[in-house]
Amino acid sequence: MKKQQVIQGNNYSAIQVGNIHDIANYTLIHPKTGAELHKIFLKDKIGFTGMEISFQSLAAHEELPYFHTHIKNEEAYIILKGKGKFQVDNNCFDIEEGSVIRVSTPGKRSLANISDSEMVYMVIQTKEGSLEEYSGEDGRLAEVEKRW
Amino acid sequence: MKKQQVIQGNNYSAIQVGNIHDIANYTLIHPKTGAELHKIFLKDKIGFTGMEISFQSLAAHEELPYFHTHIKNEEAYIILKGKGKFQVDNNCFDIEEGSVIRVSTPGKRSLANISDSEMVYMVIQTKEGSLEEYSGEDGRLAEVEKRW
Repeated sequence: MKKQQVIQGNNYSAIQVGNIHDIANYTLIHPKTGAELHKIFLKDKIGFTGMEISFQSLAAHEELPYFHTHIKNEEAYIILKGKGKFQVDNNCFDIEEGSVIRVSTPGKRSLANISDSEMVYMVIQTKEGSLEEYSGEDGRLAEVEKRW
Repeated sequence: MKKQQVIQGNNYSAIQVGNIHDIANYTLIHPKTGAELHKIFLKDKIGFTGMEISFQSLAAHEELPYFHTHIKNEEAYIILKGKGKFQVDNNCFDIEEGSVIRVSTPGKRSLANISDSEMVYMVIQTKEGSLEEYSGEDGRLAEVEKRW
């Protein structure tokens, strides 16, 4: 797939976001703060119904210019590149590539890149408390002839 | 945070999974197929309530040794490294770093690394149809003194 190409099929859809160094090229204006963010949201692009996924880049020494809470949604932050600081309420801790952070709805959260190079991360939003079955428990083996 | 360290706080928790090259060192046995997978599930480790997140590595020319469907959960596959093929029912397409694939519950899915180097990806499970508000719509700005 080429960058930003979307494919739509029966039971699936897909998008090519680009490699990790491409995320900094996406731009959007935060509707409440007016901040220019280097971020791309995927839910509306490929039709997720149980989650929102976004990718975001923070330049060297850039911080997310606001704290926020959520009304219904749990969030996961997954650090894909770089190092920084994450804060929930008054608790601040180190993050780096491979850090996965869960934040409950009332947690006042933000993060900062405190390094001299880019930081890239994903955010996943889901409805808090909504998961009923998970991992292998919800799966069923199926027979299909492989086409690769 | 050190690798596999978990921190627990009020309104949050976090784990350090390691960098992308560490994923191959995780091992688990698939309960239904007996297959040895290089995979780590995170829900029970840091207490997600709306999602399951896993990281998985496929060695060069390794394929996931089964197809499967889901009963309740939508899945997202996010390719973090490498190149391969993804198949849903009888549709097979190319994937690579930056590909994000949504699969609905009935889609019979699997994937293969068809390259000479490692492939690493994430899978996110959420309850299909469960998201009510998303992106900025569910968020509220909050005031906290930053501690970084």
